[in-house]
Parts: sequence; C-alpha cells; structure tokens
Amino acid sequence: MLIAGVAQRTIRVAHDGVGVEIIDQTRLPFELRIARLESLEDAAEAIASMRVRGAPLIGVTAAYGVCLALRRDASDAALETACRVLLATRPTAVNLAWALGEMRAALSGVAPAQRLPRAFAQAAALADADVATCRAIGEHGARLLAELSERRGGQPVRLLTHCNAGWLATVDWGTALAPVYVAFERGIPLHVWVSETRPRNQGASLTAWELAQHGVPYTVVADSAAGHLLQRGQVDLVVTGSDRTTATGDVCNKIGTYPKALAARDNGIPFYVALPYSTIDWSLTDGVAQIPIEERAASELRVVAGRAASGERAEVTILPDASPVRNFAFDVTPARLVTGLITERGLCAASAEGLLSLYPERRRGR
Amino acid sequence: MLIAGVAQRTIRVAHDGVGVEIIDQTRLPFELRIARLESLEDAAEAIASMRVRGAPLIGVTAAYGVCLALRRDASDAALETACRVLLATRPTAVNLAWALGEMRAALSGVAPAQRLPRAFAQAAALADADVATCRAIGEHGARLLAELSERRGGQPVRLLTHCNAGWLATVDWGTALAPVYVAFERGIPLHVWVSETRPRNQGASLTAWELAQHGVPYTVVADSAAGHLLQRGQVDLVVTGSDRTTATGDVCNKIGTYPKALAARDNGIPFYVALPYSTIDWSLTDGVAQIPIEERAASELRVVAGRAASGERAEVTILPDASPVRNFAFDVTPARLVTGLITERGLCAASAEGLLSLYPERRRGR
Repeated sequence: MLIAGVAQRTIRVAHDGVGVEIIDQTRLPFELRIARLESLEDAAEAIASMRVRGAPLIGVTAAYGVCLALRRDASDAALETACRVLLATRPTAVNLAWALGEMRAALSGVAPAQRLPRAFAQAAALADADVATCRAIGEHGARLLAELSERRGGQPVRLLTHCNAGWLATVDWGTALAPVYVAFERGIPLHVWVSETRPRNQGASLTAWELAQHGVPYTVVADSAAGHLLQRGQVDLVVTGSDRTTATGDVCNKIGTYPKALAARDNGIPFYVALPYSTIDWSLTDGVAQIPIEERAASELRVVAGRAASGERAEVTILPDASPVRNFAFDVTPARLVTGLITERGLCAASAEGLLSLYPERRRGR
Repeated sequence: MLIAGVAQRTIRVAHDGVGVEIIDQTRLPFELRIARLESLEDAAEAIASMRVRGAPLIGVTAAYGVCLALRRDASDAALETACRVLLATRPTAVNLAWALGEMRAALSGVAPAQRLPRAFAQAAALADADVATCRAIGEHGARLLAELSERRGGQPVRLLTHCNAGWLATVDWGTALAPVYVAFERGIPLHVWVSETRPRNQGASLTAWELAQHGVPYTVVADSAAGHLLQRGQVDLVVTGSDRTTATGDVCNKIGTYPKALAARDNGIPFYVALPYSTIDWSLTDGVAQIPIEERAASELRVVAGRAASGERAEVTILPDASPVRNFAFDVTPARLVTGLITERGLCAASAEGLLSLYPERRRGR
C-alpha cells in the first residue's frame, strides 16, 4: 500500500540481504521509522513490544526471525530454540504457531549448511502468500461493500472497524480493511469509523494513519462510542479482523470486539470478520473456553505516549502506580454474533459447516 | 466522604461566605486542588470545562452560580441571564435545568434586595437534599449488595461501574457508588471494576482515586474490557449512574454505558442504574429519540493530560490535528436492558409503571 504515495510493504529484507526491515509501529502516527532486525532477539523483541503487530504480520516476522537465528547458528538445536523463543512472544494469535510450523516443515530434512537460503525463501513465500491472501479477502469483501453502496444509492457506505486490521497488520492490503481498499480503488464511496482502541490506540495511531495515507475518509471515535453510532443508524456494517478463529466460527480479536458485535446485533447491523486461513485454529471448538487471552503490562494503561508541544515524543502517566490495573488484550466474540466470515476463499457463515464449505479438505480431519 | 481521612463535600461556601469552593476535578488524581468560584462566569466555566461534573453536582454548582450572579446584580434581568448562561453549559444532564428551576421558584416573588440570602439558603438546601438523597440510594443499593454477598458465601461482591458516579459526581456519597460505600461501612467484602472512561478518563482519575481514598478494593480496566470480564464470570452486577432518565426508564449516561448493558444482558448479569429523582425527566418517553447527546471538543480525544516523569502536569497529543474526530459524551441505554433502578425511594423496574410505583404523585401528571 501507499506511504506518501509510494507502494510499500510492512516487512522486507534489507538491500544488503542481511537484515530485515520493519516499520516500527510504536512510532506512528507521528514518525515513520524503519527499524532493522539483525537477530532472533531483535525479532522477538519487535513482536513482544508490538513494533510489529497484527496476526498475519506477527507470523511473517516470526518466519524472518527464524532466518535471522539460522544465520548465526543453523543447527537443529538453534532452530528449536528460535521457534521456542518466538512462540513465547505472544500467546493469542495462532498465526505465530502456524508460521513457525511452516518454517519447520520447510527446513526439516534440510542439512544445516543449506538451511539459510531455504529459510529466507520460505519466509518470502509466506510474505507473498499473505499479500495474495489479503488481496483475495479484499476482493470478496468489496463485493459486500458494492452491494451496500447500491442499496445506499451512492451515499458513502459507513463501515465501523476496531483496532488495526489494515495493511499494517499484514504484509500488505490488510484483512478487515482490504475490502475497503479494493472498494476505494473501484470508486465506491466509503467512510470508516475508527475506534481508538485503548490502551495502545492502534485505531487512532495506525488505522487512521494508513487510511489517511490512502485518502480514504474516516473519523476517529472513542471505543465506547461504537454502541451509540450503531444505535443512531450511523453504521452500515462492522468489519474486524481476527487473531484466532475456532473451527466453529468463534472469533478472538482485540479487546472490545465482542461489545461491538453485541451492539451490531442489537441494532440489526451486519457484523463481519475478515481473516486469512492462517488464523483458523482447527483444533478448537469453543473460543471462550479454549483460547488463551493475553494479559499485557499495566504500564500500557498507565502511560500514554504521544507528542509534546515541542514536537518531541513524550509520555504522560495518567494513573498512579498504586492503582491496580488489569490489561486484557483480546476478547472472544461467539459465532452466534457474527454475520459472516470473509476469507481468501470467499464468504461463509461463522460455523463449522460454513468454514468446511470453504475448506472442504478439512472434512477429512487434520 | 473522606479525603486523606477527613470528611469532605465536593462543593461548599468558602469560610469568608463570599466565594464557593470546589474540587477542581480536572487536576485529579495527581493533585487535589480546591478552586474558588467568585462569579457567574466562574461557575459556568467550571461546569463547561468539567472542573465539576456529574449530574447532581452540576445541578448544585449551577444553584451556587445563581447565588454568585445575584451578588453582583440581584435584578430580574440578571437572574434570567444567570439561568440562561448556566443552562447553556451542558445539554444532557437534566439536573441542571431542574436545579435552576428550583432556584427560580425559591426566588420568585422575592424582592431583589432580599434575594441573595434566600438564594444561598436554597442552594444549601439543594446541596443538603443531594446528600440525603444519595445516602438513601446507598441504603437501598446496599441491600442488593448484601444479598449478593450472602449468595457468594462471603467472597467479595464484584461490581462493575463506568465513568464516575461516586461522591465526586454529587455533593457526597455518590449515586452508583453510594451502595458501595454503605456496604463497605457495614463490612461487606467488595471489589469494584473501574472502566477507564475515555476520553476524559473519569474512571481512572476520579473513581479510582475516591475508592482508594476510602480503602475500597478496585481494579482499573480499559473501557473495552468490560465485555470480556462479564463473559468470563468476573462480575456479579453492574451499577452506573444516570444523567437523564425518561419517565419510561430509558437511561442516558456516559458514553459506553449502553455496550456494558448489552454485555451484562448477554451474560445474564444484573444491570442497575442508581439515580436521584432530579435526573428523571418526566416529560420524555423515548430516550433514544428525545434526549440531546452532547458532543464535546475533539481535543478531548486528541490530547491526554497526565504527569510527566518530572512530576509536573503535562499533555501529549496522540492524534494528528488532521485526523477527523467525533466526541459523543453520552449514550442511551433502553429500559429493556436495565434490570432495575435504584432511587432514594427504593428499587423499581425500569419502566413507567416501576417509576410511578415509587413516585405515585406523578400519576396525576406534572
């Protein structure tokens, strides 16, 4: 997608072929800083501290993390350590485990001396596959938006999203926002309601930023305002991403997704979830009971980063240290609240049958 | 209630009998600053900029604002101007209009020369009535908490609230938190989940602060986390305040209340609203259609105030000026989602019949 008019991806091998470059997403929206990853530790830190985030991008970053580890030591033991370290960075998004599994599969039976080029090739393949997958999600979702646009007689289709499931969450295109970009490309008038997404403000800092880069009209609101907008007829559909999707269509996504699904249901507004196949955890049947919910540091709620009047980056503490805090990063939206899933293979009901209709190869078990 | 162990009210006439002292709530939780109001303009500014906030406290502050105006000019014209200026400060809370109506009624037929002492006496009466009303809400609500405590076999009753409907929102005791304070006084074990309440963080800055002053156990969470807590069985009841309640039991309260009511309903958890009679707007029957929803400045979302590492008050901008923002301050929770109302006269269903059972004098119309 575009940054200042130039097409970019969120992750790439550096020109020297040694390091891996990412956009340091903790610096947006005020600074576009490209960070260089040189080692396994760099990759793990970038994922854990959310310099890169978003389930698909976490997966691809982990794949490159394996490459960086193998450059130092291509032994079996080093490969295992790399996978273990990377897997421990974030517990909820299943793409992480999936991407590491793909890397392991590609490297199994490859002699250590041949591993490095094979690893980089596999990571590049995962990145390219992510781009193609997200573009396909965009095509399928854009048909939904085109239908709504027709029904609205050319008035802008008003989409509400949460957190950032845009191109910054993937290698390119995004998941929830891919339909927006494809529809925008086709001249369908759109407006996106962006919810701030406390405590890390991914909506305000990332989604608003990337929509602005592309010229897509949007408005930022507090997370709490989504119910009001839905109740007042200001939203035509809700689309979010997913960090893990059960085989039965339950969706685990950024904390605050579930209340938005409830408000959509209460007002008869469709609630869609856009996701690549890599977020489907075919082993799970009950999202609320089975998906581990990451708890992150209290400091994310206590301290807010932004820009001081001087233009410098600055932080303020909004909550005394003595105030107890819990910081849950995700919640689970039960399938019953989800109007449909948008995957790279098309739309389906949020149910075991729905998913199997798109992924019939899964009928024969894993 | 207690500040550093000393019983206090949120508003009082200064010792010199001339000014009116308030707690500047924009300075909490890091600084307890007492501000002095000397004029109508000071009172209007304090309400509009939310140095005082909370429907009951807004009403009493407006009453004292009339007193301060009359000190300068006790004519009919000045009285009318004062009421008009104060009424225009905030559109949603009906207590403001109610308190001004009470002041007007008390002063009608009083000669200008006699108005000032009469006005101060009436404002003091409104303040005292608010304290008694809130204490009564506390008594009625505490019976609910005692029942839940028994059912939980002495395990802490886990209450979720939103924004600040504690003693800082009133003259003393609070509305939603009055039952907490009364139950706490009686030794009932409690834990309060406090939702941050973006964009002004009244939960984190005010509710957490006042609970801490009293030693009531609590934990702060992001607004978006309430659904997750309710879904995971971490909440026994939800209690919020109300800025305006229709004659049919619809409740207008801080933005984000409606999604919490939806999540409570989805998980079979009781959702109560605590309110004094002064927030009931007997002229309204449909909250969503009839209650004006205040929109506040975009800067409330763009700029976050807190404490810098130096300990000084500081602000950071989290959203570029170019990002469009809408800042809705309230939403409406339809009566169908409200388990019950807690007023100074007891508990009732959130319905016309429920309210009339507590306020039978309203059966004969206004």
